[in-house]
Amino acid sequence: MVTYILDSTKSEPYYIQIYNYLKRDIEQGTIKTGEKLPSKRALSAHLGVSVITVENAYGQLLSEGYIKSIAKKGYFAEEVTVTHYKKSENKPSRNDDEPEEKEPENQLFPFSIWAKLMREELSYHQEKLLTKPSFQGVYELRVAICEHLKKFRNMNVSPNQVVVGAGTEYLYLLIHTLFGGNYTFGVEDPGYEKISHIYEGQNITCKAIPMTDDGIDIDYLKQTQVDILHISPSHHFPTGVVTSIGKRYALLEWASHSPSRYIIEDDYDSEFRLSGKPIPSMYSIDAIDKVIYMNTFSKSLASTIRISYMVLPNALLDKFHQATWYYSCTVSTFEQYTLARFIKEGYFEKHINRMKKYYKERRDCLLKEIKNYDIFKHSVVSGENSGLHCVITFDTLLSDEDLKHTVEQYGFRVGLLKEYYKEKKQIDTHTLIFYY
Amino acid sequence: MVTYILDSTKSEPYYIQIYNYLKRDIEQGTIKTGEKLPSKRALSAHLGVSVITVENAYGQLLSEGYIKSIAKKGYFAEEVTVTHYKKSENKPSRNDDEPEEKEPENQLFPFSIWAKLMREELSYHQEKLLTKPSFQGVYELRVAICEHLKKFRNMNVSPNQVVVGAGTEYLYLLIHTLFGGNYTFGVEDPGYEKISHIYEGQNITCKAIPMTDDGIDIDYLKQTQVDILHISPSHHFPTGVVTSIGKRYALLEWASHSPSRYIIEDDYDSEFRLSGKPIPSMYSIDAIDKVIYMNTFSKSLASTIRISYMVLPNALLDKFHQATWYYSCTVSTFEQYTLARFIKEGYFEKHINRMKKYYKERRDCLLKEIKNYDIFKHSVVSGENSGLHCVITFDTLLSDEDLKHTVEQYGFRVGLLKEYYKEKKQIDTHTLIFYY
Repeated sequence: MVTYILDSTKSEPYYIQIYNYLKRDIEQGTIKTGEKLPSKRALSAHLGVSVITVENAYGQLLSEGYIKSIAKKGYFAEEVTVTHYKKSENKPSRNDDEPEEKEPENQLFPFSIWAKLMREELSYHQEKLLTKPSFQGVYELRVAICEHLKKFRNMNVSPNQVVVGAGTEYLYLLIHTLFGGNYTFGVEDPGYEKISHIYEGQNITCKAIPMTDDGIDIDYLKQTQVDILHISPSHHFPTGVVTSIGKRYALLEWASHSPSRYIIEDDYDSEFRLSGKPIPSMYSIDAIDKVIYMNTFSKSLASTIRISYMVLPNALLDKFHQATWYYSCTVSTFEQYTLARFIKEGYFEKHINRMKKYYKERRDCLLKEIKNYDIFKHSVVSGENSGLHCVITFDTLLSDEDLKHTVEQYGFRVGLLKEYYKEKKQIDTHTLIFYY
Repeated sequence: MVTYILDSTKSEPYYIQIYNYLKRDIEQGTIKTGEKLPSKRALSAHLGVSVITVENAYGQLLSEGYIKSIAKKGYFAEEVTVTHYKKSENKPSRNDDEPEEKEPENQLFPFSIWAKLMREELSYHQEKLLTKPSFQGVYELRVAICEHLKKFRNMNVSPNQVVVGAGTEYLYLLIHTLFGGNYTFGVEDPGYEKISHIYEGQNITCKAIPMTDDGIDIDYLKQTQVDILHISPSHHFPTGVVTSIGKRYALLEWASHSPSRYIIEDDYDSEFRLSGKPIPSMYSIDAIDKVIYMNTFSKSLASTIRISYMVLPNALLDKFHQATWYYSCTVSTFEQYTLARFIKEGYFEKHINRMKKYYKERRDCLLKEIKNYDIFKHSVVSGENSGLHCVITFDTLLSDEDLKHTVEQYGFRVGLLKEYYKEKKQIDTHTLIFYY
């Protein structure tokens, strides 16, 4: 059986190391086309890792077409004619001051299609690429985004409401510029630390609003002075909570009571609804022009593609133009035109479907795998119908740190839920975040 | 002689219209290779425009290789084998809500080289392009910027001091994030409106500091509570003033008197020093870590390439990391790697030299042309040794608006100096800005 030396000091998890070894061997012909791979259980025992670790490695190889699975027979190496994901061999050690971040998920990105579209743009559309676009972004891209939102989120948006920017952090800065400094922002607790950090970095007062099991705590919200509420109703990070439709209406009602109130709907992973009935976006049920919709392609395509966008309600457009007319669009025209075609020609939809299938498999695999370990007995899974992670709450007396350590030993990639709390970071929640 | 219909309702100036007509005719063979073009004076009389208008059109064609100039003989059409600057013919009218901005200067940008480098990156460096870079930008690009700064500005900078961002506006926002809200900023008056607008949009108190003929008024500065001074000592916009070396030292001395004081050196067009002795950057003479250096490739390459950078003094690095660790780099890796090679392989230097030659010719042509008109008698030119514009002060009783109107009738592209004042926009300065 193949024997690989796994290195626990590396930043890459074991499953990536195994994946890399197997990929290399298939590419180099050490594992021949049609050759049967060891069973997951056999390889995991052989290498001293959990079955799920091997399963993750095989899942990645499957999705990239390096191996195929034949029911009841096992996994077999595929013929690899082209090196899909060329690694540069033995790079000379760089004299770098800070190591760059590896993003294994980016390997699902259909780079060759993207490169083809970009090459075509470079060859045929020079004038267009050198024409400075509107601050809000290239018109063609804004049209493509509107069509996408109509089709996938049933949202009726005009291109003049769409603002394209280099990443959501930049859009948060624009929102601050739009509203100025006299508004109080509300953020979810627990939640993405980044959001409150960025607002507070602009001297915005940020109130942490606790989460309940169907969205943020609206009674708590009503007792605060919050004007602008920043939430992710489709799939809250990290709890995985989906804001109920009743709560959505209640939040819109809350917003209707003051002209200074707005809701930022951060729809960052709504594309990855893995099962269950889709829930309409807050933007699509907003009849009073109170919702700013926000989404990003950095999560759904690749983290190095820094393109995000927001949709402003019509009522805010004039104010926005007055506050930002001296800004230029931060995204290169080359990438904007490439992305416009990527969406318009159906590649984005295909990619999303492929990603969903991949994450669904990983999720199903995870939910199956946890049945093998006693510690998951009486545990409760939630937030598993959407997005790229779920949370599991344990019936345990272990501290959260010990719990994490135990579960990691079985090969799972987990984070501590409690670290995402703003107010009560020290209190054990017995809950871990599982990344697919 | 060629007869072209010039359209005064178009946003394009006449010289661009003439340039476009001639280019089309040379490309299509209506004007044959080797054919002599009409003299500037003859064509200007024929079309009813000023000689400088025709000179500008010829200058553009010369610099792009469409025509050549033979001393004492005139201008002749060159053989055009490749369509260097392909225009898309008769675009169907777009259903756009806002017209996009035309940037004639972008036509000097060596698009084919840029496209070649980008195609190579797309073909050979997939893994690199999908690896998320440091927030400060791709390491290779930061190294290339350091080498460029060493060579052209005699600045000793380490890559870990360089921060790459999508445009200077974005860097201004990061500077606000770095310092927080309790600092008072000083900006030049007159100056780029954009700068104070962006700071004030972040609720920063901005003081306008008057300009003298060797830089900002330091006595005035000392009477204010300014902490962070944002200036462009290499070539002030719009006056064209170059801050004297004595004033540079005086400003550093000012900064040394308080730990909260810093100077932002906005070096936006230092590449375009057209004549005279170069003056060292403030960063290069700063021994007390008080200067933040800032520059952009959007001005020197093409406005659609949104890549700017700043160099932080070592003393600010920790504070900067604490304030911004949750941000991601806003520039796409595709463009960062392309630019790194563009600089490293000498294309940037070549491009700058070509641009300098082009603007020098345009400037010389302007300074020659103004001798033909009475209104320029007793006028004083300044700021003509650097950058892409100069200013001319007139001995006249005309209002600034009438002066502008008169001068525009001779075919010059001008702006009103007084519009760039923060405090005294209404007062006539009898001074116009001339763009090359």
